[in-house]
Amino acid sequence: MTKYPEDLRDLVEAELETLELGENDGRDAAGLIEAMRYSLLAGGKRVRPVLALATARALGRDEREVLPFALAVELIHTYSLIHDDLPAMDDDDLRRGRPTCHVAFGEDVAILAGDALYAEAFHLVLTRQAGEPAAVLAAVAELAGATGVSGMVGGQYLDVATKAPEGADGLRRLHALKTGRLIVASVECVLLISGMSEPATMPFRAFAAELGVLFQIVDDILDVTGTDAALGKPQGSDERLGKRTYVSEFGLEQARELARASHHQAREHLAAAAPAGAPELEQITDFIYTRTS
Amino acid sequence: MTKYPEDLRDLVEAELETLELGENDGRDAAGLIEAMRYSLLAGGKRVRPVLALATARALGRDEREVLPFALAVELIHTYSLIHDDLPAMDDDDLRRGRPTCHVAFGEDVAILAGDALYAEAFHLVLTRQAGEPAAVLAAVAELAGATGVSGMVGGQYLDVATKAPEGADGLRRLHALKTGRLIVASVECVLLISGMSEPATMPFRAFAAELGVLFQIVDDILDVTGTDAALGKPQGSDERLGKRTYVSEFGLEQARELARASHHQAREHLAAAAPAGAPELEQITDFIYTRTS
Repeated sequence: MTKYPEDLRDLVEAELETLELGENDGRDAAGLIEAMRYSLLAGGKRVRPVLALATARALGRDEREVLPFALAVELIHTYSLIHDDLPAMDDDDLRRGRPTCHVAFGEDVAILAGDALYAEAFHLVLTRQAGEPAAVLAAVAELAGATGVSGMVGGQYLDVATKAPEGADGLRRLHALKTGRLIVASVECVLLISGMSEPATMPFRAFAAELGVLFQIVDDILDVTGTDAALGKPQGSDERLGKRTYVSEFGLEQARELARASHHQAREHLAAAAPAGAPELEQITDFIYTRTS
Repeated sequence: MTKYPEDLRDLVEAELETLELGENDGRDAAGLIEAMRYSLLAGGKRVRPVLALATARALGRDEREVLPFALAVELIHTYSLIHDDLPAMDDDDLRRGRPTCHVAFGEDVAILAGDALYAEAFHLVLTRQAGEPAAVLAAVAELAGATGVSGMVGGQYLDVATKAPEGADGLRRLHALKTGRLIVASVECVLLISGMSEPATMPFRAFAAELGVLFQIVDDILDVTGTDAALGKPQGSDERLGKRTYVSEFGLEQARELARASHHQAREHLAAAAPAGAPELEQITDFIYTRTS
């Protein structure tokens, strides 16, 4: 198994565990908070927040400076999983080996848990993220853009409503929105909070965009080749839902070749972004390529 | 019928009509944008954004300065209606005399249309609201807090999961969260954007909090006394859902007395907040008390 920046993951895990959801008067909504925490603390590699923290390190900053933003990204990712799993969407009963949120808490509570995680993500970053106010504003604006019509939710719409627009290009656009933009934002927002000039950030952006592509190709391959146990959900669910994927579009062998080329490209962009090396970002890139779940 | 600041409503209506949802590459998500606009442009008094604009006027400012924030509040209100109407929630088929979003577009698209409206609300205010960056940050943080666990979504959770915590106090807490906090935020965020000091804003806050209470009492009364045609949805739906309301808790006559007292209190607070008068805020307060739908 490829090395992974476990210290950053541990930091994310510990911070999520103690994160206060809602303000002091949260007692009435204890059942809602329980559902939010159930999904939020289901484990996983925490790729997006770890990516954000690793980007801070690659810029020579203390990763703790961007913790509120990193945690917010994980809250948003969790919200998207809860809504994606709903009966009206992908209708998944299992996620990371456990009953999905709506199975455990009911569909009404699951919808609201997703809604609330999204709200608390913004609340967290807006109240706790340090930095120049104008830079924080720009970062949160990017986060909102990356998760709206022209980002994550728009991509999910394409996925459920159209199964993907025509052709390989349509498939790429779907994934660029559905999973790509939040992965890019995990890097991009750290650049914005750091106040780096646009030219200096271009190689990082190219790296992040390629990482988003790589993530999805591997995801599609794993849906075909992974085991239920490793995936924590039934293998083959894309096919069951009639979804177009990199595998259905190109075949397994060609998809593997695309993943190899994408990994190579991501590492090239990263080398250009951080000529002196960025060990954690390199590890994340390799992990995304070689992961088995 | 009480006078209403129709010029402010017309401004909101015109701006919503031309509002661009999503970035330039929205073509793939055209069907999603259609569902968002279907619910967003269903008419109504636009109480929350009009309240925000009227607050700006009461502070002696040009209401156009807070338009992005005002529109964002209406996007959020629309998102909450779409999700509240879902089969897993209140299961309403009609809203403002038209099929609800999930009836018109399917449950999956309706969930995503709500999600996307919330994202675009933040994107709008974060990219277009003028003001000191620190003041805008504080206002958007308040908006996120008002719509999360300790606000709108927490209140909706209480409504669907518990039908309201015990006693009249529990009912008040539910409504303070579910409808109150977004109404308060419609005033509060304008105060924050305006950079007013906290002591100067206290009477406005007291006014807004009372207005939220008044709004809900009248809502509960109308659910019993209104006609289907005026309400645009079946009368008596609270009772059908077994919900506790001001009417079920206190009876119709006592609820009417509470509304009268709340209206009086709101006007008193407003007189303290704006000793020289604030015609539009006065009109909104009277309208909320005397409305028939």
